[in-house]
Amino acid sequence: MPIHRQPRRRESPVHSFQPVLDRTSPSPAARQIYLSIRTAILSGQIRPSARLPSTRLATREWQMSRGVITEAYETLIAEGYAHSVHGSGTFVVSNIPQAQQKTAQSLPDHTERTISKAARKALLAGPSFGSSVQVPFATGRVVHDVRTTEVLRRIAGRHLNFGEDHYRNVQGEQSLREAIAAYLTASRSVRCDASQIFITSGTQQAIDLVARTLITPGDRVLVEDPCYPGARHAFELHGAELTGIPVDENGMQTALLQSFTGTASAVYVTPSHQYPAGAALSLSRRLELLNWAKANRSWIIEDDYDSEFRYDGRPLASLQGLDDNERVIYLGTFSKALLPSFRVGYAIVPRDLVAAFAAMRPFLDRFPPPFQQQVLADFLSEGYFSSHLRRLRESYRKSRDLLVAALQERLAGHLTFSVPSQGIHLIGRSTGSWHDDRAAAAAAAEGGVKVTPVSPMHVSAAPRDGLLLGFSALTSSEADQASALLLATLDNMAARQR
Amino acid sequence: MPIHRQPRRRESPVHSFQPVLDRTSPSPAARQIYLSIRTAILSGQIRPSARLPSTRLATREWQMSRGVITEAYETLIAEGYAHSVHGSGTFVVSNIPQAQQKTAQSLPDHTERTISKAARKALLAGPSFGSSVQVPFATGRVVHDVRTTEVLRRIAGRHLNFGEDHYRNVQGEQSLREAIAAYLTASRSVRCDASQIFITSGTQQAIDLVARTLITPGDRVLVEDPCYPGARHAFELHGAELTGIPVDENGMQTALLQSFTGTASAVYVTPSHQYPAGAALSLSRRLELLNWAKANRSWIIEDDYDSEFRYDGRPLASLQGLDDNERVIYLGTFSKALLPSFRVGYAIVPRDLVAAFAAMRPFLDRFPPPFQQQVLADFLSEGYFSSHLRRLRESYRKSRDLLVAALQERLAGHLTFSVPSQGIHLIGRSTGSWHDDRAAAAAAAEGGVKVTPVSPMHVSAAPRDGLLLGFSALTSSEADQASALLLATLDNMAARQR
Repeated sequence: MPIHRQPRRRESPVHSFQPVLDRTSPSPAARQIYLSIRTAILSGQIRPSARLPSTRLATREWQMSRGVITEAYETLIAEGYAHSVHGSGTFVVSNIPQAQQKTAQSLPDHTERTISKAARKALLAGPSFGSSVQVPFATGRVVHDVRTTEVLRRIAGRHLNFGEDHYRNVQGEQSLREAIAAYLTASRSVRCDASQIFITSGTQQAIDLVARTLITPGDRVLVEDPCYPGARHAFELHGAELTGIPVDENGMQTALLQSFTGTASAVYVTPSHQYPAGAALSLSRRLELLNWAKANRSWIIEDDYDSEFRYDGRPLASLQGLDDNERVIYLGTFSKALLPSFRVGYAIVPRDLVAAFAAMRPFLDRFPPPFQQQVLADFLSEGYFSSHLRRLRESYRKSRDLLVAALQERLAGHLTFSVPSQGIHLIGRSTGSWHDDRAAAAAAAEGGVKVTPVSPMHVSAAPRDGLLLGFSALTSSEADQASALLLATLDNMAARQR
Repeated sequence: MPIHRQPRRRESPVHSFQPVLDRTSPSPAARQIYLSIRTAILSGQIRPSARLPSTRLATREWQMSRGVITEAYETLIAEGYAHSVHGSGTFVVSNIPQAQQKTAQSLPDHTERTISKAARKALLAGPSFGSSVQVPFATGRVVHDVRTTEVLRRIAGRHLNFGEDHYRNVQGEQSLREAIAAYLTASRSVRCDASQIFITSGTQQAIDLVARTLITPGDRVLVEDPCYPGARHAFELHGAELTGIPVDENGMQTALLQSFTGTASAVYVTPSHQYPAGAALSLSRRLELLNWAKANRSWIIEDDYDSEFRYDGRPLASLQGLDDNERVIYLGTFSKALLPSFRVGYAIVPRDLVAAFAAMRPFLDRFPPPFQQQVLADFLSEGYFSSHLRRLRESYRKSRDLLVAALQERLAGHLTFSVPSQGIHLIGRSTGSWHDDRAAAAAAAEGGVKVTPVSPMHVSAAPRDGLLLGFSALTSSEADQASALLLATLDNMAARQR
């Protein structure tokens, strides 16, 4: 039978130690005390096998409540830093590895810290996903009228159900997939049903899903030259080798595909509205591309990012709907036509690829969040989207005209451009008065104007004479101020180049 | 000056053609007529250079409004299928490529269609992200009390702002990152600030982000054996070579790391609660792992997926907080403790890796949707999360006890298990009465009971004697029914094996 000894009132071997307690911290006092003692143990300030002061003594010396100290000690014991000897007190364990028993050190030299090849490429790719600041002439800005805002809020109110929850279908909500299939059949001549649709977090995730499901590192991918950087770099990060096919006023020069030797796993195109150059792929080239893909067993990745915004005539039908060989993967998004922060896009895949995409999809992020999908499904199926699009199209047409007028009025000496009949951006080309689009964009940014240099979007070397200007949600005063600032910037560059 | 001739009233060369119009379809009539004619052109039913009937004639013959036909023709012209000759009518173009001019064919033989190596691996990995059906003993079920449901609904109501929108910070909302940093500092002894946090769409996307930023194809990654399949396969899909380090009742056997020869880019661990086996990594092993990682320049990926649910004692502090060398990437999620469909998890990375992660993050899906983040940020910073967790923990403790009681009462002849002091699942091991966990799980599924075989989670060959049973949100009647069904299943298997 153990003898219950009264602990001797001797000086604690850790009497010099005073734990740190910040009473303004949100961290519980016991947690702070525990951490403070733990740090002292690991740093060697409190030695292995040392006896910690009794809770009674510590209460007095450290000016803390006994409950707090008891809890801190219990945690130390639970985590193996200390053990309790019945009747004798609480002791630091003896086997704290030596390597941990030095004063907390500064971080070691990290110059050799390793990251992946892909991460190094991503760092080099640079800020193609630039700041989120809402300045003219940034792309991707959205301002809705009160009607759309109110409808969305009302619909969203129905879907705030946070009681029961579970993991969902990897392809996304059935209701949204059905609504998208109906919408695209009618508006884009896409041929699909809901079972072929994968809801994604915007176009970028759709590209990522496609690349991972179809491209093996080392495979060749053909892209438009110039090409949307978000797509180009995504393929490169997955180890694809890229070949750029030049673009002219009818889109990708598909005749050049015939002279391309070798195999290509996929061709990435923006046929409705070439990004960034703005052309629509002509019908004969569409057919040529489809035939080439069929003959060469290549996939076509059709990125239809902004077909909703056509100001003259009807939008061209999709490549996907023309394709009798199920070689086309069709990508779309609600980021331009509704809300970028909803993060809803989609990929429509040939029926015999559904299983492969469904196997890959969960490894990206399991499944997309249902809330935004439910709101969007109702918004589409209740008919709000088409009237919203009509109003937004008119609003963006006005913004385009504001930008065009401001450029003609102020910047005719520096920029030439065509009035775009589709989309939410235009490209201004140098009249010869300035020579470096990257420098121009950097200088404009200093003045608070966001323009995007076009030359970095080229796969091959290209003239540095293009600036991409977004006009969605542009107001009259913004167009005025931003064009004046851009004029000052380009005047300044022109003067220095003379 | 052109002569305006009256078109001759001759029989149209495409008189036999009748476009298809489905008046119940949501697709506009003009769109349907256009598609119908286009298909006829591409299939050769309407020949190149053929004259289309005049709108007047077509109105009569096809029984459609003239406006609809005019619009359909305009679309055909806009898309290059037809052209209008002034005074003569509308003609199909002559240069439709021959290859397109055959009857619509069935899909070609797709047996040789190519998908990526990763997609083939994903198909082989099988349904580790199984169905979302809410059956006992599935994992990942959540049922909240009325208080939590109401608070979430009220907070969510504040964030339904759909007026202005723009692209956001790739790392996620600042408010949520600050709330997470404060929460983890207090509860998990994690040392970080908001600038090191990347909000992700659950743990799976966090693993994907880590793998892509740190692992180059061909690199070796050490994992626990058995290992969480979602992590293991994710690393493999990115080309990592895996080595399993066996687990015992104190977690990964870190002593075996010393005998591992070669370099490993990363070690993936679940130290708070080894998945699936349930052990907590002991303190001495934690320190051993940290020292090994430092000496070998390996990253440690700490997946702290369910540390919130501890039923006895305090949760163990994180590895990350013990690490003085910034070798640990810490992963957490709100899918278990709040809502899987919120899709909010996070990765906390060493300060000198922030740039590399920030460069890679947008290539996954640009940025996470702000709505769920804003709701969660308020829920955390207004103090609701900790009281919610207290209530949920009590609820899950009751569910655990229900499961334990049901197993003891009914299944003692077939399953042995330990009562888990943490988490939301337990593993039942065969008493010897049955021998194949995959077959048992398949048979149970037929009866409507979801149990997960443990043997496929092993990296090396393993006995097929383990079934993983989730108990979150389990009710008394569910425990009763499901254990009875599982008993019948295992009785049946035992009988057949005799």
